[in-house]
Amino acid sequence: MDRGREVKMDHSREGSDIEIEGSFGGNTEDKEFSSLREPLLRNRKNNTSQIAIVGANVCPIESLDYEIVENELFKQDWRSRKKVEICQYIFLKWTFALLIGLGTGLVGFFNNLAVENIAGFKLLLTNSLMLKDKYYLAFALYAGCNLILAIAAAVLCAYVAPAAAGSGIPEVKAYLNGVDAPSILAPTTLFVKIFGSIFGVAAGFVVGKEGPMVHTGACIASLLGQGGSRKYHLTWKWLRYFKNDRDRRDLVTCGAAAGVAAAFRAPVGGVLFALEEAASWWRSALLWRTFFTTAVVAVVLRGFIEFCRTGECGLFGQGGLIMFDVSSAKATYNTADLLAVVFLGVLGGILGSFYNYCIDKVLRTYSIINERGPSFKILLVIIISFLTSCCSYGLPWLAPCIPCPTHLSEICPTEGRSGNYKNFQCPPNYYNDLASLFFNTNDDAIRNLLTSSTEKKFKLAPLLVFFVATYGLGIITYGIAIPSGLFIPVILAGASYGRLVGNLLGPLSSLDVALFALLGAASFLGGTMRMTVSLCVILLELTNDLLMLPLMMLVLLISKTVADCFNRGVYDQIVKLKGLPYMEAHAEPYMRNLVASDVVSGPLIAFSGVERVGNILHALKITGHNGFPVIDEPPFTEAPELCGLVLRSHLLVLLKEKKFTKERGMTGSGILSMFKAHDFAKAGSGKGVKLEDLEFSEEDMEMYVDLHPITNTSPYTVVETMSLAKAAVLFRELGLRHLCVVPKTPGRPPIVGILTRHDFVPEHILGLYPHMKPHK
Amino acid sequence: MDRGREVKMDHSREGSDIEIEGSFGGNTEDKEFSSLREPLLRNRKNNTSQIAIVGANVCPIESLDYEIVENELFKQDWRSRKKVEICQYIFLKWTFALLIGLGTGLVGFFNNLAVENIAGFKLLLTNSLMLKDKYYLAFALYAGCNLILAIAAAVLCAYVAPAAAGSGIPEVKAYLNGVDAPSILAPTTLFVKIFGSIFGVAAGFVVGKEGPMVHTGACIASLLGQGGSRKYHLTWKWLRYFKNDRDRRDLVTCGAAAGVAAAFRAPVGGVLFALEEAASWWRSALLWRTFFTTAVVAVVLRGFIEFCRTGECGLFGQGGLIMFDVSSAKATYNTADLLAVVFLGVLGGILGSFYNYCIDKVLRTYSIINERGPSFKILLVIIISFLTSCCSYGLPWLAPCIPCPTHLSEICPTEGRSGNYKNFQCPPNYYNDLASLFFNTNDDAIRNLLTSSTEKKFKLAPLLVFFVATYGLGIITYGIAIPSGLFIPVILAGASYGRLVGNLLGPLSSLDVALFALLGAASFLGGTMRMTVSLCVILLELTNDLLMLPLMMLVLLISKTVADCFNRGVYDQIVKLKGLPYMEAHAEPYMRNLVASDVVSGPLIAFSGVERVGNILHALKITGHNGFPVIDEPPFTEAPELCGLVLRSHLLVLLKEKKFTKERGMTGSGILSMFKAHDFAKAGSGKGVKLEDLEFSEEDMEMYVDLHPITNTSPYTVVETMSLAKAAVLFRELGLRHLCVVPKTPGRPPIVGILTRHDFVPEHILGLYPHMKPHK
Repeated sequence: MDRGREVKMDHSREGSDIEIEGSFGGNTEDKEFSSLREPLLRNRKNNTSQIAIVGANVCPIESLDYEIVENELFKQDWRSRKKVEICQYIFLKWTFALLIGLGTGLVGFFNNLAVENIAGFKLLLTNSLMLKDKYYLAFALYAGCNLILAIAAAVLCAYVAPAAAGSGIPEVKAYLNGVDAPSILAPTTLFVKIFGSIFGVAAGFVVGKEGPMVHTGACIASLLGQGGSRKYHLTWKWLRYFKNDRDRRDLVTCGAAAGVAAAFRAPVGGVLFALEEAASWWRSALLWRTFFTTAVVAVVLRGFIEFCRTGECGLFGQGGLIMFDVSSAKATYNTADLLAVVFLGVLGGILGSFYNYCIDKVLRTYSIINERGPSFKILLVIIISFLTSCCSYGLPWLAPCIPCPTHLSEICPTEGRSGNYKNFQCPPNYYNDLASLFFNTNDDAIRNLLTSSTEKKFKLAPLLVFFVATYGLGIITYGIAIPSGLFIPVILAGASYGRLVGNLLGPLSSLDVALFALLGAASFLGGTMRMTVSLCVILLELTNDLLMLPLMMLVLLISKTVADCFNRGVYDQIVKLKGLPYMEAHAEPYMRNLVASDVVSGPLIAFSGVERVGNILHALKITGHNGFPVIDEPPFTEAPELCGLVLRSHLLVLLKEKKFTKERGMTGSGILSMFKAHDFAKAGSGKGVKLEDLEFSEEDMEMYVDLHPITNTSPYTVVETMSLAKAAVLFRELGLRHLCVVPKTPGRPPIVGILTRHDFVPEHILGLYPHMKPHK
Repeated sequence: MDRGREVKMDHSREGSDIEIEGSFGGNTEDKEFSSLREPLLRNRKNNTSQIAIVGANVCPIESLDYEIVENELFKQDWRSRKKVEICQYIFLKWTFALLIGLGTGLVGFFNNLAVENIAGFKLLLTNSLMLKDKYYLAFALYAGCNLILAIAAAVLCAYVAPAAAGSGIPEVKAYLNGVDAPSILAPTTLFVKIFGSIFGVAAGFVVGKEGPMVHTGACIASLLGQGGSRKYHLTWKWLRYFKNDRDRRDLVTCGAAAGVAAAFRAPVGGVLFALEEAASWWRSALLWRTFFTTAVVAVVLRGFIEFCRTGECGLFGQGGLIMFDVSSAKATYNTADLLAVVFLGVLGGILGSFYNYCIDKVLRTYSIINERGPSFKILLVIIISFLTSCCSYGLPWLAPCIPCPTHLSEICPTEGRSGNYKNFQCPPNYYNDLASLFFNTNDDAIRNLLTSSTEKKFKLAPLLVFFVATYGLGIITYGIAIPSGLFIPVILAGASYGRLVGNLLGPLSSLDVALFALLGAASFLGGTMRMTVSLCVILLELTNDLLMLPLMMLVLLISKTVADCFNRGVYDQIVKLKGLPYMEAHAEPYMRNLVASDVVSGPLIAFSGVERVGNILHALKITGHNGFPVIDEPPFTEAPELCGLVLRSHLLVLLKEKKFTKERGMTGSGILSMFKAHDFAKAGSGKGVKLEDLEFSEEDMEMYVDLHPITNTSPYTVVETMSLAKAAVLFRELGLRHLCVVPKTPGRPPIVGILTRHDFVPEHILGLYPHMKPHK
């Protein structure tokens, strides 16, 4: 465990003197993680030198820094800050919350409007051909429409913004944990997410628009927090307050909550989702702001839906945003019902964990195909689209035609696009049971599954066929290059097996099959996503029936408990699969048997308080480190002491201005008067000063620069003998990017190393200490 | 700012040599805070020596420690811990959650049953006398019953457990923040809280049982976590896992949530209450466990209520736990209604902040009376009880008799105890409008206020009289020596002015007055308690009407925003008034202008790694410190270095066993083999080893003891130049009790001082630096 704790502090004139080989400890997370690199991580102990030096520009994943950098510039700025500026800041925070709410609400409504109109038009057209008995032509039209829409979504995803594929919730979750995946919140991603989601859902895939809505909300929030655009001269002085990771994190949290609120029209559920699933960091004031944002979303949606009641929204009718109504089914229950609910919970847990297992396998397979290039991505989408079209058009032919029941409130067979009594291939006054599930939008299918038994009775076989089809299609659809939410597929499959169980247990239970369908959806959601309170509230807000609360809680608790025995939640799994270094809230037990110095590895690159420009440039060039310790040495101090930590981004800004001196002396006051704190504020992703853009003469290289004004003089430190578990708690709770490890005994160099996010990743630790057992 | 940063490390043989005068910095919070000591705090800079040495036993308030003490004993224990022990621990956590749910549910039901029966019997008896026109006798009986019940509650509170008075929510909130007020979670407090609350509510006071239920839940949870009783031989080996502040905090969080769930039958609301208002610290796994606890409560309550439907619960009928039903009133609204809602929100904000202001003034006045002794407390209760009886019996006489309307679903005038058409003094077939509000239990009064306009129309004057009376009585009742919740008084006053506004705006608005009453209650709750999401969910669960959600959110946001302009939430105010050193989640702006060494003051008492017993005893005797730095010195090390931090409680356990040596040498291994980690586990409050119980001979005093095995070798440290704001964030986020401040430059003594909770209290800081502006 004594793998070189030496500190590199040789400030000789030759820059080449700084050794870097295999410098893996310290702050190198930027060049370590990319998608699906787990095997790499596992082997890193053996071949560290092989991938150590890859240059500073290969930065697929960046860590976020929630620490306030207390350098002299910040302190100067803080002292001069006026009260009116603080008021501006608070005002802006609330304005942004309002704007996020408005934006997400608007997008949510637009999304639904577009999907309902496109999919509705497609279904009506197909239907009209079927009424004329042109079945093959109808299929060609149906599959063709689906294919065109699917290709449109896939092209956008494959060529414009690959980051927009998938749900987006895992990436948002990782972002709020402190991991910034490449261009995950970029404007192009937002654009593709919105339109890709519309095309994908309209193409009839078994995907939802809920995950993408969360991602959309987060993107909108992040764009607002970017502080305008210098390119288009859209900057505003006030916005500089938000140019830091802390405030952006708060905005993105609001955005994620707004997304759920817009997707399900569930404002309280949105807040709880952000709290339980998305956010790693939370405080009471943020709860309030998030609540405000989702309230705005609710008001916006309500306004638009009121407007659509006048009939000006085309085919946007009952679909999409309207809540599922199960109030016609009375919720009184007895002990036998409770047993049925327990059974549903267990079933949901097993099916859910198996679903996660399959998704994992499929994603690993698809990633091989998708890595081959955009054309392969599109090909995969085409195959899945054709398969989906075959299922949704072909499978209803298996069902027999059923004569229409009399005394219905609904028209039978259904006229128009939605409805529960689709005529399909049947003669007049007959309907096809399966077509009302398959040959519909996903939202309408859910609504039909939640219809009370007094309104509609499903037979067993159609439910079974539909369950198997949606379960399978849901698994193979997630991971193709379109924006795809997981909520709707899970609710579809869950509601169908719930109704199936309800039909089977009908004679024993007094519960309505619609409630069984709802509880089935809850159990499957609990089994895959492993949320509890937020799912419960979302489902209650969706169905507007609070009397179901105790049963819902029960089924969610059971399914989550059962599923947790087998594997992790689907979002956690995807985060892990994508290789994002997510920090868990709790430390693993084996981390208590290790101390901080066990995982930190040297030699470390440190700067002197007044450093030669050449040395700095060389260090920046040959490493990907984002933070460097600054050490004050004689003659400025009596003995070497840790001055603090300086960030790469700040160094680049400082170097760019070329405020150098010939002599090695403290010139900090000159720098202080030249810069303002916001010159060093974090730019939007990819917008900061780049090392390649800097050019220096030979003369410059030999000059000195005083790093004190930009050095964070009080970074968080831990002593080298602190257990890794304790250090991990500190790192995670405070949202750090760098954690300095200092020596226990005096007389040694003042810093042992720097811990970063990647040093806490289990794969890394177990790579160094393979004898450690992952579960104690 | 240079107030002695010297470290006291003179380990001379004479114990008397250790200087203590005015040792206020460091870890002295235990002897600093007691109720209403703000003025004292403000003057402390001037007369520190006056109150510095008060001995170790005057410990009204103790801080809690959520840090894992990583000493050698702990490490030894951790390494030897088997997998089965971890499973036991997890199993126990869930068992405790179940038990807390069962216990709180049971108490909640029992509480309601008792109140409904006692109050119902009282009302029926009075009513029967009134029907015989014996009005004076009826009043004597009514006031007498109230008085007896009030005195019973007051005697319990004044003599048995003074900590049971009041709501209890502020104390639970402080506990979860890390402040253990004296005997706040003791068994006697639990007993008095349950019965005091029953008597108090049954005595007709304008108090609720909701706050006390939260406190009850927390007490039950804390008792479970105490690990049995050695006195009664009720110990269980497994329970030792819970003998620490961290696990107790989790249990108490579950308990607080269970309390709200039991009080309002709102399981989701309970979880959110614990999250938004009570807890200072949270993680996702705890959310799940809390959710389970409240689900158990909901199931228990439902079971009992089902049982009571058979009529075996006496007068327990519609009262107490049944939800308020406003579903008969349709929730459709237009722009005019929104304006009315905004008006209600603003009004609620103003009335709420004024309510808080009055409560603060009244509490300060009452504390002068209450401090005089138990008899004065009881006298105050008697006066308020008589006043309340006069109001509730006298004021209805002001109202005219109204002839009963025809075509009602209810019987008019009401037979039995509850109901909306109380006959009171009126002739047959007439009813008294005010009596249905005043001459009823509080729960029934709320139900009557929430009756739809189609069922019952209130006149303006009665509503106004009732509003003024409950607003005033609510203010003067809180603070007397009975368990008193604030929810019900606030809902009563809020619903009455809401209905009043609804009546006034009737012609302009399409909303039902029942909904106005509900929104009024929401606005007043928002204005006093300043919660948002949790109140919203609690009210939705109470009324079972999700369509009100957008309006409810709007009114809560407005009332909270308006009220926040004037003062703080009522619970925060009471926490402050009680002098509990609550750590806010955010640091005050002026803390950024100070550094850690500015508030930490010396000289500090430190121990050597191997210390003379006499020195330790002397230090323990003359200070109230709870943590002492341990410094390794030559000859054991080359230079003085910080070994770690040792806790007073651990020192006492170590000293008790008298494992001393004549020579000054490392004897840690002997100690390690003698003790187990759980010997040092935190005992229940007041149960640990006490300094007075230890006796040592002269010989013992001259011997040495090795402190290494019990020294936490990796306490969290900050450098002396770190801003106080940053240190405060670290302190609060990690739930610390001691935070070591280390010097920036090497060569100085290895520790500057210790920061404790009290060093971050604004009054302390502003006492030291009066020129700092509290806001900015």
